[in-house]
Amino acid sequence: MAAGDDVAGLVAQAREGRPRAVARLISLVESESPRLREVSAALSPHVGHAHVVGLTGSPGVGKSTTTAALVSALRQRGQRVGVLAVDPTSPFSGGALLGDRIRMSDHATDAGVYIRSMASRGHLGGLSWATPQALRVLDAAGCDVILLETVGVGQSEVEIAGLADTTLVLLAPGMGDGVQAAKAGILEIGDVFVVNKADRDGAASTRRELRSVLGMAQRPEGAWRPPIVMTVASTGEGLDVLVEHVDAHREHLGAGELQRRRHDRIRREIRAITLETVRRRVGDLSGHAGLDDLAAQVLAGSTDPFAAADQLLEQL
Amino acid sequence: MAAGDDVAGLVAQAREGRPRAVARLISLVESESPRLREVSAALSPHVGHAHVVGLTGSPGVGKSTTTAALVSALRQRGQRVGVLAVDPTSPFSGGALLGDRIRMSDHATDAGVYIRSMASRGHLGGLSWATPQALRVLDAAGCDVILLETVGVGQSEVEIAGLADTTLVLLAPGMGDGVQAAKAGILEIGDVFVVNKADRDGAASTRRELRSVLGMAQRPEGAWRPPIVMTVASTGEGLDVLVEHVDAHREHLGAGELQRRRHDRIRREIRAITLETVRRRVGDLSGHAGLDDLAAQVLAGSTDPFAAADQLLEQL
Repeated sequence: MAAGDDVAGLVAQAREGRPRAVARLISLVESESPRLREVSAALSPHVGHAHVVGLTGSPGVGKSTTTAALVSALRQRGQRVGVLAVDPTSPFSGGALLGDRIRMSDHATDAGVYIRSMASRGHLGGLSWATPQALRVLDAAGCDVILLETVGVGQSEVEIAGLADTTLVLLAPGMGDGVQAAKAGILEIGDVFVVNKADRDGAASTRRELRSVLGMAQRPEGAWRPPIVMTVASTGEGLDVLVEHVDAHREHLGAGELQRRRHDRIRREIRAITLETVRRRVGDLSGHAGLDDLAAQVLAGSTDPFAAADQLLEQL
Repeated sequence: MAAGDDVAGLVAQAREGRPRAVARLISLVESESPRLREVSAALSPHVGHAHVVGLTGSPGVGKSTTTAALVSALRQRGQRVGVLAVDPTSPFSGGALLGDRIRMSDHATDAGVYIRSMASRGHLGGLSWATPQALRVLDAAGCDVILLETVGVGQSEVEIAGLADTTLVLLAPGMGDGVQAAKAGILEIGDVFVVNKADRDGAASTRRELRSVLGMAQRPEGAWRPPIVMTVASTGEGLDVLVEHVDAHREHLGAGELQRRRHDRIRREIRAITLETVRRRVGDLSGHAGLDDLAAQVLAGSTDPFAAADQLLEQL
């Protein structure tokens, strides 16, 4: 542990809005430092305030630009904003901005905004178990809204929805097959749809197509009907409407549905941590004498691999 | 359980050489029937005789043709032969021959040969846990040699080596970058190298290149030096030499090294089954009241996900 890594002290400083304490705590959870558990425990009493908004969509639809524009809009309302940009394909991580996040640097010196890029070639498939912990850090640090942005690659898009209270699905006109391309699983997870680059040719037809596909979905009475918002994130056009819809969705969730979503999220997280813990214990068995004994018994034909696994499990 | 699925009876019939009993047992392990464990236990006293020979190499090098030619060569010596063709990318499975296995149909009516194609989009990454169990069935059924062939896709090639006593790595001239393309991990696993389609242009230079790359490897005194065999599997040319080298490798392994390899293999298998068992138990927790309680405690801020996972583990 580096000097100054008193966890309780870091959490207290983070709650006072000290960016370096926030950054240090995220580093601790991200590096899976031995203090990960201690950090997680220290955060527990201070989480549950932030509205987590996920942004997902294919590369090129303008996720980073939209994230930056949302930060501006939320800051104008005086809200504290956290940005967590997760790139499951990148080995790079840390506090540095991603290369294409030029616009985000407008906010880099704003004390009301925390920006963090995380690499996340996760142990759990896509997003690593560090991602929910980093969300907890930003939440405990007093963020009103946390924007969780992922580089859209397959499974991670759907995982984002599992971590967010409100999921924005971004599309843009002229992105290959447009709505068709986005169909696989992503239309089901959107709470708000954004047709970005709405000043381009084809925006109206993208909206029309999207509306038609969404209209086919069966929704129960009183269920949330995902709106479609047209934006030009690079100029800020449509961002006020987008923020209104994000607020409306949060309001629609109310206390009950929000808690239900978060309960499900935590259940998944506990299960993932449980499984990963066992995976590591089993991985640590390389030098385990019991495993060698059991393998010798299977080799001798006196037991079988399944019975041996049962015995190993009892020893764990 | 279908009528006639008395496991002890099926194992006895399989040991008498009844193909239908062998096929039924493989189906039981492959479908992960509830009888999987019972089958595995019943096989235990009867395994360890077969010499498992893995064949791996890029698509197009002639693995199926080489497998068929090896079957012919081994049958000429009067040996019983099992063939397990594993395709980790295919959703299709069962006793049917793969589409391109025309040559294998020469052996389809030979009572001394068991041929089985398995789909294997496995739970354990590449090869499923059914693959080692299917090997055990063929072993218990009295096969002298089991040819384990995989469609070469990345990880599965290396996994094949983990299941085989002797691993054949196949190359062919004019396959893109040839030896260079095969370099990533595959040169380390070969016990015998086969340059198939040796009547084609470039065969000599493929051998030369391969010899040069293999020559760079540091090997301890007395270690096995992987030979390179030139074959034209479609005509049977070179197959006798290949069989000699396979025999020589088996002899080189002796009792000690063979047991060591198999011990390692069983260790890995026990670990994989252990992990998969826990994975399923954790997956089965969807309706677990304890998990809901723990999630509620995390949501209320009275505990954290890691402490909750620890408690869940204790309950398991």
